[in-house]
Amino acid sequence: MRYLQSPETGLTFSSVIPAVERAFENHCEGEVQMPPKVYVTFPKGDFRTMPAYIPALDIAGVKIVNVHPDNRAAGLPTVMALTVILDIDTGKPVALLNATRLTDMRTGAAGAVAAKYLAPKPDIVLGLIGSGRQAEAQLEAVSEVCALQEFRVWSRDEKNAEALISRYPQYEGKTGSLETVCDCDVLCTTTPSRTPIIRDSWIREGTHINAIGADAPGKQELDPAILLRAGVFIDDYAQATHSGEINVPVSEGLYDPALIRGTLGEVVCGKIGRKNATEITVFDSTGLALQDLAIASIAMQENGGVELTFP
Amino acid sequence: MRYLQSPETGLTFSSVIPAVERAFENHCEGEVQMPPKVYVTFPKGDFRTMPAYIPALDIAGVKIVNVHPDNRAAGLPTVMALTVILDIDTGKPVALLNATRLTDMRTGAAGAVAAKYLAPKPDIVLGLIGSGRQAEAQLEAVSEVCALQEFRVWSRDEKNAEALISRYPQYEGKTGSLETVCDCDVLCTTTPSRTPIIRDSWIREGTHINAIGADAPGKQELDPAILLRAGVFIDDYAQATHSGEINVPVSEGLYDPALIRGTLGEVVCGKIGRKNATEITVFDSTGLALQDLAIASIAMQENGGVELTFP
Repeated sequence: MRYLQSPETGLTFSSVIPAVERAFENHCEGEVQMPPKVYVTFPKGDFRTMPAYIPALDIAGVKIVNVHPDNRAAGLPTVMALTVILDIDTGKPVALLNATRLTDMRTGAAGAVAAKYLAPKPDIVLGLIGSGRQAEAQLEAVSEVCALQEFRVWSRDEKNAEALISRYPQYEGKTGSLETVCDCDVLCTTTPSRTPIIRDSWIREGTHINAIGADAPGKQELDPAILLRAGVFIDDYAQATHSGEINVPVSEGLYDPALIRGTLGEVVCGKIGRKNATEITVFDSTGLALQDLAIASIAMQENGGVELTFP
Repeated sequence: MRYLQSPETGLTFSSVIPAVERAFENHCEGEVQMPPKVYVTFPKGDFRTMPAYIPALDIAGVKIVNVHPDNRAAGLPTVMALTVILDIDTGKPVALLNATRLTDMRTGAAGAVAAKYLAPKPDIVLGLIGSGRQAEAQLEAVSEVCALQEFRVWSRDEKNAEALISRYPQYEGKTGSLETVCDCDVLCTTTPSRTPIIRDSWIREGTHINAIGADAPGKQELDPAILLRAGVFIDDYAQATHSGEINVPVSEGLYDPALIRGTLGEVVCGKIGRKNATEITVFDSTGLALQDLAIASIAMQENGGVELTFP
């Protein structure tokens, strides 16, 4: 059994995005086992257990991931993850991956897959709401599949937005108000908001939105009126209605889950997609165990790590 | 984050049994979080993911455990387990335990807790059906809470039964037919049987049975007629009806889950118990994540292990 402390070393979105795209394809084709994420709640946070098996990749395992919003004060990331990979033939744990950075990357990669199929055009203005690790992952991943004319960033603290822009001098970057940043082709929302900070009137026709921030009951970033104007694509039905962008509007009766267009897997398989250039599209991302296995399968190809005796 | 390769070193049933007993008490008092075990199926086996949180012990984590019946041919145990322990305050993984032997011990400890409260008398004849690791764990654990007058062992291969007996010269041990071994005060069934090998006519009044072997859909060891004569105690309702001794009789309509007397937690809390000295009692054990956390909490008190950098 091998422990990989930095399995993200050397990984690039150019290899991660196709791997995650194939996992969504496997998902659409029904060739996977992925029970719903299981939540356990702590006084200051929670943890989620995410088991899955992708026969096509010959990989199976479990990601264990926490969310503790106050961790920054303790000098720790809000979200930390560990993935345990099991041998299919014997059930023996063969690898443990520090999946904290891999989690950022696989979520970014899902945003890129959504943008690849749902962006209104190939050359885009990208809008980022939030300036944290996931905003950065969306920027890096989406820029692999779309040509960035420009990117715009809004952050609660403008200094953080400016710092993000300074790290990507190769792109034309600007800070802006929420309204200005929403005036774009592909919008990625990555905040932990519990109120809809994105107003319906700010979203113009044709915009594709990666709604990333909402990943637990009670979280939402978009005015529910946007969902009613949009074609809504989710990653997984159970997870999206329980904890995704649509969870609050669904629980309040403002959005009917029957309106969901389908899954990103179905988009990748070509079963569904954007209807026309003026349609607004939303990808409601909650994060699938399949994405974690897909990125683990690449990360494990690297040698190294600490060998641990088991059993 | 620390990896403990042999956390069972130095552990004895004299400390494990009270810890597991307290976990069942916490379970009865509702002071735990324990979502149902989640199964993922492989061509040659399966794995189960078992998250839980016991606030009273300030411990939380996930056990990942496989069952691959053909593993012996590959020189590996059929069942291997890894437990990941998380810090409550930050969600950070703090310990990884090789829980293969701990799993044997915590299952043995549950059998001892059941025997402590449900055995018909303090001095017992113990019957063991099966002679593997779990038969041995039941022998060691039950002998901590009951005085063994004698123990009897049945195994498909009598040599294995004799080998088990030779390892415990401090007790009077005998091999015997299924019928002879069933003629006892406390019977522990530990086989992977999918047909009821224990006949109703062999079980005399007053016998307590630890039904351990059935831990997945389709498995059963006892003639369902025994269940209809007995007071049946389970560890967890969802798990017992899905994968415990009662799962096949329930699915075939031979046993009504409404007949279940209650949980072992309720027995430990004094809410329910054996009605009289002649009642047959059955403890249907499927194994709880709480037991895994209880034993982990003791095992982690030992120093040592390999320190791993995380995150």
